[in-house]
Amino acid sequence: MAHPVSPVSPPLKDELDIVIPTIRNLDFLEMWRPFFQPYHLIIVQDGDPTKTIRVPDGFDYELYNRNDVNRILGPKASCISFKDSACRCFGFLVSKKKYIFTIDDDCFVAKDPSGKEINALTQHIQNLLTPSTPHFFNTLYDPYRDGADFVRGYPFSLREGAPTAISHGLWLNIPDYDAPTQLVKPLERNTRYVDAVMTIPKGTLFPMCGMNLGFNRELIGPAMYFGLMGHGQPIGRYDDMWAGWCAKVICDHLGLGVKTGLPYIWHSKASNPFVNLQKEYKGIYWQEEIVPFFQSVVFPEECTTVQNCYIELSKKVKEKLGTIDPYFEKLADAMVTWIEAWEELNPVSQAAAAAAQPNGVKKEEPSVKSK
Amino acid sequence: MAHPVSPVSPPLKDELDIVIPTIRNLDFLEMWRPFFQPYHLIIVQDGDPTKTIRVPDGFDYELYNRNDVNRILGPKASCISFKDSACRCFGFLVSKKKYIFTIDDDCFVAKDPSGKEINALTQHIQNLLTPSTPHFFNTLYDPYRDGADFVRGYPFSLREGAPTAISHGLWLNIPDYDAPTQLVKPLERNTRYVDAVMTIPKGTLFPMCGMNLGFNRELIGPAMYFGLMGHGQPIGRYDDMWAGWCAKVICDHLGLGVKTGLPYIWHSKASNPFVNLQKEYKGIYWQEEIVPFFQSVVFPEECTTVQNCYIELSKKVKEKLGTIDPYFEKLADAMVTWIEAWEELNPVSQAAAAAAQPNGVKKEEPSVKSK
Repeated sequence: MAHPVSPVSPPLKDELDIVIPTIRNLDFLEMWRPFFQPYHLIIVQDGDPTKTIRVPDGFDYELYNRNDVNRILGPKASCISFKDSACRCFGFLVSKKKYIFTIDDDCFVAKDPSGKEINALTQHIQNLLTPSTPHFFNTLYDPYRDGADFVRGYPFSLREGAPTAISHGLWLNIPDYDAPTQLVKPLERNTRYVDAVMTIPKGTLFPMCGMNLGFNRELIGPAMYFGLMGHGQPIGRYDDMWAGWCAKVICDHLGLGVKTGLPYIWHSKASNPFVNLQKEYKGIYWQEEIVPFFQSVVFPEECTTVQNCYIELSKKVKEKLGTIDPYFEKLADAMVTWIEAWEELNPVSQAAAAAAQPNGVKKEEPSVKSK
Repeated sequence: MAHPVSPVSPPLKDELDIVIPTIRNLDFLEMWRPFFQPYHLIIVQDGDPTKTIRVPDGFDYELYNRNDVNRILGPKASCISFKDSACRCFGFLVSKKKYIFTIDDDCFVAKDPSGKEINALTQHIQNLLTPSTPHFFNTLYDPYRDGADFVRGYPFSLREGAPTAISHGLWLNIPDYDAPTQLVKPLERNTRYVDAVMTIPKGTLFPMCGMNLGFNRELIGPAMYFGLMGHGQPIGRYDDMWAGWCAKVICDHLGLGVKTGLPYIWHSKASNPFVNLQKEYKGIYWQEEIVPFFQSVVFPEECTTVQNCYIELSKKVKEKLGTIDPYFEKLADAMVTWIEAWEELNPVSQAAAAAAQPNGVKKEEPSVKSK
């Protein structure tokens, strides 16, 4: 009789949290069960806290609603958006793990061209555990992937690469378009599977989408603040963009890498373009000044931590973007509040925190915790 | 009886030259016949000028050997490399067309994942005729491609893009590795078909390979000088890299775009890694200083043409790289000679030249011209 094969432990099982912002029952997890079930979930319930969110049996999770956010953060809860998926960053704050994967609840398992289901999480982990190449472009894409390498002319001194802070995954089916593009191309679907992971070069900004995103919380966590969006704010749908612009300029300053490309998820349904237009229209206008602002950001040399950079960035936002609209002064203040909250909940270095207090503050706090 | 379908004219048939450097009979053209036959070829014969190069019947071509180069350029012929594929840039000099496609004679037609033969030339033309996006990264790759667009968060003011100057194609089968990587991974083959075209962002350098390359000669031609390589020079196999670094910093300064990705060609055989190592070893060492040099190049505002930029660059090369080795002083002088030769053979603006004198100097000059 054959001996059973020893099970292979899922990669980073005890070092990664999956963060999901939602307003509905999480039936979408059924499709992800083979890939997500070994991991711990942090669910951030958006909107009405009296509503009960159903989580399929067998998942290990903690769930926070608005009452929890208010209780845990007190007056600092003002920095966490309400009625907007920007609330997901509360999950980043209370996690004590080294890595985060965050996904939207309308994202399902995609298939590669051979018809095989894509384990998005494993690909993000692979992206995060291998270096990035922000200082020189490799024309055969990720040189650390099997079957690839650095091409002729790539300086040898740069082949060690840089630590990877962010892994930005893409979407088949419904592309992540803004409202005007949705309105103009209502039927466009993304059917092109591009079999590549690449580093976004230093000095280049990109539109970071929060739908399918992994990052190293120790390296870049404090910059992954999704801003003030939704209820009571003049814009929405710029939460992930804001985080991406802030995080990218800080990664560039600190010598960290950002990857984009694989893995794909299947984005099931387009949001309403008319509603989106209402949320976006100020952002569409403002981004014409926001992007040049971020393109011009230079940090002083003494900014050597993400927190330092982020506080410095908040000052620049207040000074340079405050002239566009008072909203940016409020946002700059919220950026400071976010860092205060981060330091309160993550008082020592992440590594020490993760090692020393695996059952830290968060474990006692959520409304619901089940296995 | 059905009327015959009107033939579709091949794109840019009268506006593009195919430049091929070679030392052997051009039997490889047989495989390219369906795609290349409508176009004009400029063949630059490297090495022994007494040798006869056979070109398959039915191709429209002109062929230049070293004697032709010397006769046409006189003392300025010193800027054209001998016994090195860097001599291909002589073809760029004598062309009077707006677009160039250059390909090596060990490159064959590749197949896409569906098994269809790839018309590399058509893809390069498509890349060159659509804009680039050097100022902001689009996560769904080339936004001008069918089925793609700019994603949410991409500033609308940047969606017109920039004129595309260069289209850098890739290679299936034998990847373009340096000698050390060839030696370490002799059996590695590139089997990954990445279905993407993307812009290399402004401010980012890349290793440009000359094997499968298209460019807009009017926009960037004078910067496509492949340097002093091969016979009598201390290095080889850095000709295309040199051109790529020079051209990229000039494109960045002038607001032009560089694309990489599709089309693939099938690269049939690896060159000898021991021979390559001998050619490359100084380049491998020197590039550690050359790359930071190019990363730091800033042109004065008054440099508004490629020629101006290139002359300015030659001064910087002499000043900053001359300290590495006297070779760079010689190279800087050759860069100036190249521009002098360019201006001699292309005396007025390219557009005017192409329109006014389609049978310019070159047509009388080649050793062989047949149809």
